[in-house]
Amino acid sequence: MKFKCKKSDFTNSINIAMKAILGKTTMPTLECFLIEAKADQVKITSNDMQLGISTSFEADVAEDGVVLMNAKNLAGYVSKMSEDEIEFESDSSNTVLIFSGMRRHEDKGMADDDFPRLPDINFSDTITISQFTLKEMVRQTIFSISSKENNKILTGELFEVQGDELRIASLDLIRVSIRKIKLDKSYDKIKVVIPGKTLNEISKVMSNDADETVDISFSKNHVKFEFGNTVMISRLIEGNFFNIDQMLKNNYETKVVVNKNRFYSCIDSSILLMTETDKNPVIFTMQDDEMKVEIKSSHSSMNEDVPIQKEGKDLKIGLNPKYIADVLRVIDDEDISMFFFNSNSPCFIKNEDESYIYLILPINI
Amino acid sequence: MKFKCKKSDFTNSINIAMKAILGKTTMPTLECFLIEAKADQVKITSNDMQLGISTSFEADVAEDGVVLMNAKNLAGYVSKMSEDEIEFESDSSNTVLIFSGMRRHEDKGMADDDFPRLPDINFSDTITISQFTLKEMVRQTIFSISSKENNKILTGELFEVQGDELRIASLDLIRVSIRKIKLDKSYDKIKVVIPGKTLNEISKVMSNDADETVDISFSKNHVKFEFGNTVMISRLIEGNFFNIDQMLKNNYETKVVVNKNRFYSCIDSSILLMTETDKNPVIFTMQDDEMKVEIKSSHSSMNEDVPIQKEGKDLKIGLNPKYIADVLRVIDDEDISMFFFNSNSPCFIKNEDESYIYLILPINI
Repeated sequence: MKFKCKKSDFTNSINIAMKAILGKTTMPTLECFLIEAKADQVKITSNDMQLGISTSFEADVAEDGVVLMNAKNLAGYVSKMSEDEIEFESDSSNTVLIFSGMRRHEDKGMADDDFPRLPDINFSDTITISQFTLKEMVRQTIFSISSKENNKILTGELFEVQGDELRIASLDLIRVSIRKIKLDKSYDKIKVVIPGKTLNEISKVMSNDADETVDISFSKNHVKFEFGNTVMISRLIEGNFFNIDQMLKNNYETKVVVNKNRFYSCIDSSILLMTETDKNPVIFTMQDDEMKVEIKSSHSSMNEDVPIQKEGKDLKIGLNPKYIADVLRVIDDEDISMFFFNSNSPCFIKNEDESYIYLILPINI
Repeated sequence: MKFKCKKSDFTNSINIAMKAILGKTTMPTLECFLIEAKADQVKITSNDMQLGISTSFEADVAEDGVVLMNAKNLAGYVSKMSEDEIEFESDSSNTVLIFSGMRRHEDKGMADDDFPRLPDINFSDTITISQFTLKEMVRQTIFSISSKENNKILTGELFEVQGDELRIASLDLIRVSIRKIKLDKSYDKIKVVIPGKTLNEISKVMSNDADETVDISFSKNHVKFEFGNTVMISRLIEGNFFNIDQMLKNNYETKVVVNKNRFYSCIDSSILLMTETDKNPVIFTMQDDEMKVEIKSSHSSMNEDVPIQKEGKDLKIGLNPKYIADVLRVIDDEDISMFFFNSNSPCFIKNEDESYIYLILPINI
């Protein structure tokens, strides 16, 4: 194999493919990139057995071929090259040579026999959305996935398509986060659970440009993301997700509207008093046009009166300020609306068209 | 005690005083700031028993007083305040109240009885230099102090004043770093060793403005840095520093001039091949107007020809590329000069007026 390419093209592809390279593994092939040159394209493939990535770039290919090479070594050599043009060669014994300017790297590659290539799957349904929108929806929900592997289904996010609506949801048994958007047309019903790790890695390589789109295709056990010159295929998490519709309510006893930044500053400061040893909740007392926010630890206390617009009954409720802060951080609105029933029922934070809904269980006070 | 002040003044002083607050200690007072209000000034003092800091800011003091308060708690409360004005109060039971806008923090302070106030020392000699210059001299030498506590003297830097010259040096038995500047006038001879940790912390709070100065005063066991509204007093390290003049030479067999950025790119890339398990040196072969740079690990190799101007004999020498990279990173010159004797003698990197001198021992090849 022999090709010549631009350093920036090579580096971009390496950075994308690196998202499916694990740290230390017992299988050296999983620490490798599969590098294939053919026609005027070079393709880099990586696979950590849950997420597989394949990404291509244009190159001046003098000789077709394929070689496996340690991903971190290659990334190191290429990123430190100071010249713009890079030449890559491998021979029949899988010795790899990389040239740039007066510099020459030699490394041992491997044959590609054992490499787990991306599975050849028949994907049936495909939806298309903006990369930026997908990224935003993930950012606004992923903080409430569970990190506990003993309930696997909660380490992923629900992706649900119904008619012309896409809904993404995550929950960790104490809180639920839901984002909803309209699609450009109606699709068949889809309901899958995508691993949180996959969504995190995909978000890192997606564009911030709202005009660039991603095609998302589904099969029984896999999801495929296709954008630019990149394909990412991830396993789905098997099992039934919780019925989130059952947790949602449309009525309320108390509705509170509050300035988001003002409220966030107060909540953020109250977190300082939630030490590891005493996990006292913040106590919210909503009365007339003021919300009293109070928290006590063993040696200190804080309180602040935050102005609100209130509809319905006065209410006192205890909540974990970290969970509220997580929600406030991802909402872009100037004011937010909170809905309550009583001090033992969940607090809802949602907007009028319910494009976002957050549910947080209270703490007994 | 009762005072009103600007949040930014309070925060600045807290950030400076925080440099002498240790993490967890067995003495709770060492996790505290001593806060004193008097006339129109508030003074914050911290002391980790090696470095002591005292820094003041203007405030509207309604009642003089003093209280000890946990440094991290105070820093947290104040940094999260959203209003510009802060009110601070403490009463006879050392209960502390901090108000800002509608927010109220209450915390338990302590009496100041056990707090180790800054020592009252008679400093004799004082030199004055620009804060930026001191910061730069430290940055350009501190990387070669030793981290091993078993040879305490090497964890500090030599500060030596002779006539109108200040020389700073550090060494870790494999390399030596020396920086030298002219002072505005002549001073009595001073020769002390300042702990590396002190110099690191001081560098973090010094100004980048070349016009702002710092007064450095010395006593037998302490050094004092005075700048702006801040005083930092550090213990010195006892003992005799190595005789560095004895290690320096003025003649050479081979002199090489090389473009710094070009050389750094090559060296930086060669470090990739120095893995934990096989610590092969980089081998430099200087011949005519080229320096061949080569390194081999168990599975890979790299080589590059770097153009040089050479005076004197051809030479082959092995050096640790990490040590060369450390030096190249802190030199601002476009070209650097290296001086050699033979493959078993140290390599010198220095400029013409010897305002910097770096010495690196070779590795046998």
